[in-house]
Amino acid sequence: MTEQYRVFEAELTGTEKGNPYTDVWLKAAFQNDAEKIEVNGFYCGNGIYKIRFMPAKPGVWNAVTRSNDPLLNNMELLCECVAAGEGNHGRVLRKNEVLGKDGFSGEDSFHFMYEDGTKFQPFGTTCYAWINQEEEIQEQTLETLKNSCFNKVRMCIFPKYYTYNTKNPLNYAFEGNEADGFDLTRFYPPFWENLEKRIRQLDALGIEADIILLHPYDRWGFSKMSRETDVFYLKYTVDRLCHFKNVWWSLANEFDLLTWKSIEDWELYARVIMRRDCYGHLRSIHNCFKMYDHSRPWITHASIQRIDIYKTSEAVTEWREQYHKPIVVDECAYEGNINLGWGNITGEEMTRRFWEGCIRGGYLSHGEVYVQHEKIWWAHGGRLHGASYPRIAFLKEIMDDVPHKAAPLKLTPENRKENWDVPCLCREDDNSFFLYYFGFSQPSFRIFKLPEGHKYKIELIDTWNMTIQKLPGTYVGEIRVELPQKQYMAVRIKKV
Amino acid sequence: MTEQYRVFEAELTGTEKGNPYTDVWLKAAFQNDAEKIEVNGFYCGNGIYKIRFMPAKPGVWNAVTRSNDPLLNNMELLCECVAAGEGNHGRVLRKNEVLGKDGFSGEDSFHFMYEDGTKFQPFGTTCYAWINQEEEIQEQTLETLKNSCFNKVRMCIFPKYYTYNTKNPLNYAFEGNEADGFDLTRFYPPFWENLEKRIRQLDALGIEADIILLHPYDRWGFSKMSRETDVFYLKYTVDRLCHFKNVWWSLANEFDLLTWKSIEDWELYARVIMRRDCYGHLRSIHNCFKMYDHSRPWITHASIQRIDIYKTSEAVTEWREQYHKPIVVDECAYEGNINLGWGNITGEEMTRRFWEGCIRGGYLSHGEVYVQHEKIWWAHGGRLHGASYPRIAFLKEIMDDVPHKAAPLKLTPENRKENWDVPCLCREDDNSFFLYYFGFSQPSFRIFKLPEGHKYKIELIDTWNMTIQKLPGTYVGEIRVELPQKQYMAVRIKKV
Repeated sequence: MTEQYRVFEAELTGTEKGNPYTDVWLKAAFQNDAEKIEVNGFYCGNGIYKIRFMPAKPGVWNAVTRSNDPLLNNMELLCECVAAGEGNHGRVLRKNEVLGKDGFSGEDSFHFMYEDGTKFQPFGTTCYAWINQEEEIQEQTLETLKNSCFNKVRMCIFPKYYTYNTKNPLNYAFEGNEADGFDLTRFYPPFWENLEKRIRQLDALGIEADIILLHPYDRWGFSKMSRETDVFYLKYTVDRLCHFKNVWWSLANEFDLLTWKSIEDWELYARVIMRRDCYGHLRSIHNCFKMYDHSRPWITHASIQRIDIYKTSEAVTEWREQYHKPIVVDECAYEGNINLGWGNITGEEMTRRFWEGCIRGGYLSHGEVYVQHEKIWWAHGGRLHGASYPRIAFLKEIMDDVPHKAAPLKLTPENRKENWDVPCLCREDDNSFFLYYFGFSQPSFRIFKLPEGHKYKIELIDTWNMTIQKLPGTYVGEIRVELPQKQYMAVRIKKV
Repeated sequence: MTEQYRVFEAELTGTEKGNPYTDVWLKAAFQNDAEKIEVNGFYCGNGIYKIRFMPAKPGVWNAVTRSNDPLLNNMELLCECVAAGEGNHGRVLRKNEVLGKDGFSGEDSFHFMYEDGTKFQPFGTTCYAWINQEEEIQEQTLETLKNSCFNKVRMCIFPKYYTYNTKNPLNYAFEGNEADGFDLTRFYPPFWENLEKRIRQLDALGIEADIILLHPYDRWGFSKMSRETDVFYLKYTVDRLCHFKNVWWSLANEFDLLTWKSIEDWELYARVIMRRDCYGHLRSIHNCFKMYDHSRPWITHASIQRIDIYKTSEAVTEWREQYHKPIVVDECAYEGNINLGWGNITGEEMTRRFWEGCIRGGYLSHGEVYVQHEKIWWAHGGRLHGASYPRIAFLKEIMDDVPHKAAPLKLTPENRKENWDVPCLCREDDNSFFLYYFGFSQPSFRIFKLPEGHKYKIELIDTWNMTIQKLPGTYVGEIRVELPQKQYMAVRIKKV
């Protein structure tokens, strides 16, 4: 029995001769009363092949294999699927898609949702090379994540060669090693088994694996494979991993540093992924100095590194207007004390950027680079040492409480008067909810004009000290709210 | 005897009949061996007329008056001018102009200079309505300015009606009062005498008076005078005040809030000022939501209110490229705790904005709005209560020490590598000086590649705690500098 949204797996034995990775193809079309979904199997080494399938609907799914290897051809498969258990909400998709709305328009365009209709708001973090560290550190990373608020991790398949992260990995995706070179036609099964194990463990923690397929931080040659090898690698990766509900595809990290790849390459790779991934997992591509054209139809959400050093997540407003897609600021700089310019903001500034972005209807990812520790979270995983992560957890609680139909306040001549400087998330349809964020400003009081005909309760939120103070009584009309003349305050106003 | 750059004044007695302000004109052309400069006299009430003249060169200047009043016509005037005394450097002009360079190009285009060639870097502050307060407060303001580092004050002629500043002024520029109305054809001499006294007192303190000629914060009607009355008022103001060397003309504060005035109006007013001001004092116009076209030839420097709430003085780089003129961010928001969005940044943030702007080759103005005090500096003057003003004084000392030919570092592929995130002021011609500012970043160390062939000394500057720590020894080549993992640090590197 397979639980809905979880992985059905059939193990088959086929040929070991030649190079099964390049020579053998294997497919199966799973069918219930209404639907037929074709998946690609893949080779696991030692003559073992696997077919995986993630049923999105309960019931009986039948399939017959097809292959150019007679040992694998014409096998009957049966997947009996039962309804999803508690906490299993399926894939994360664009909210519009889950709600059956077309295209990119309206507030729902900017958000995500589990496919069963459960709310999902990403609060990401970054551990690029965590699966390439010693076993003990990988376990520690999972333990840290378990105790954190993060529900998305950016992580690479290929090892990472970059300042503070120059060791060889435990395993490589391809057969071979640095000294003797790599066989780019054969994958190395232990690497993939570990990767899958980690994806499953993340899923058990409710964490999405935002898998970075290509990146430029390389000394082994994986960033400079030919177009054909890239496609070969992408097909294998998708065939093998797309059955995990918590997988997102990030085509590249800092794509524009891979200067030897063209836009045509990326567009081709996107088509390959779309063709092989029958589940339509989320797809993005992440920039360094210049943005990819996130309006391309294959891109489900904008995965952004801030380009301006000073105006970062505040630009969510403009990016929403530009792309009409969910905006995920996957790099708004990292908390830490590194020498390099992207990794030395304070915990306060990191927290501020999260708030600024979320109040504007965007999403952010965290990262941490404190050089005094041997393991640096952003690359190795391990432990968190910063000041922002508990505040991000606090923000997540606040955001979980935001009503479904809330959206960033639009500046009209009317509300511009008092509140032109403060972003606000609110429900304009019934005036039931307002959440203002004051950021680095330190007003000692503020005037609010509450919508007529309603009573409100007001809470002062100290986003840094993580306190919520309910003001006594209820409020109507134009009111003056005393504030503590401190940075990082928010005001939450709810209809009684 | 008149000192060079100071005011020669001749008092004449003419008609008192009719309305001398509108009916009588009076001119005199001062002449030495090489030059002839025509000035307009003005009426002071009680049959008294004055002719003023600021000689820019020592020697004998002769003039004969001309007037439509026979009592004022054909009078001989003699101005004997002696060389400027200590501390008297004349007008502040664009550096290009002082150096005899044409147009707007090269680094000198972005700076000011006293006309005698002495360095002048504006560190402004804002006391819009200080001359309209009680005598005692005006004196207190001068005392505060005397003990501050500020060398430019933005100040209005017309009284100010705006939150926290709603009282009637002591005097008005025109005859009349609020109850009975104003006679917009007659000026009120005591107002102008006081204004002149204050301008002279500022000059004695080495402070430029950035005079705001029109502004929208009004309940008396001075912002809604006809075009003809505006011109009448501007002519009188310029005829009377242009002889003071420390006068700058700010056509308007937040010109775009005076929605009933057109661009044609402003352009006309600029022409009127240029025609009447024979000394070519600095001219600007200041915005609220939308920038005036600062590339207009009559504008000597951009007087900017930041439009973006988040990226403020960092935009100096772009504004320099856009206008090729001195960039003065006269409002980058104010330090304080006011309810309104432009007036509640911290002392730290104000100081940071000053540094960010100065390191980029721009200039800033300060302002302070702490509501718990009866007198609020930005409007009334009085006393300073904030945390930024001593730090701005410290910055001024640092900037005074910057060598003449220093300019903002241009990002090239070479220096982009290590230092893309940090603005730097440096002398690229001889590699003798570098001043890096780290702003809100908190790196624990930094790599610098010092230019080859030179030895350097290095100083760590804590811009908030106002300390300068010289690192032991001298440095060559690629070096690692330990930093204290704190915000608001700068590094100064000087050739030994």
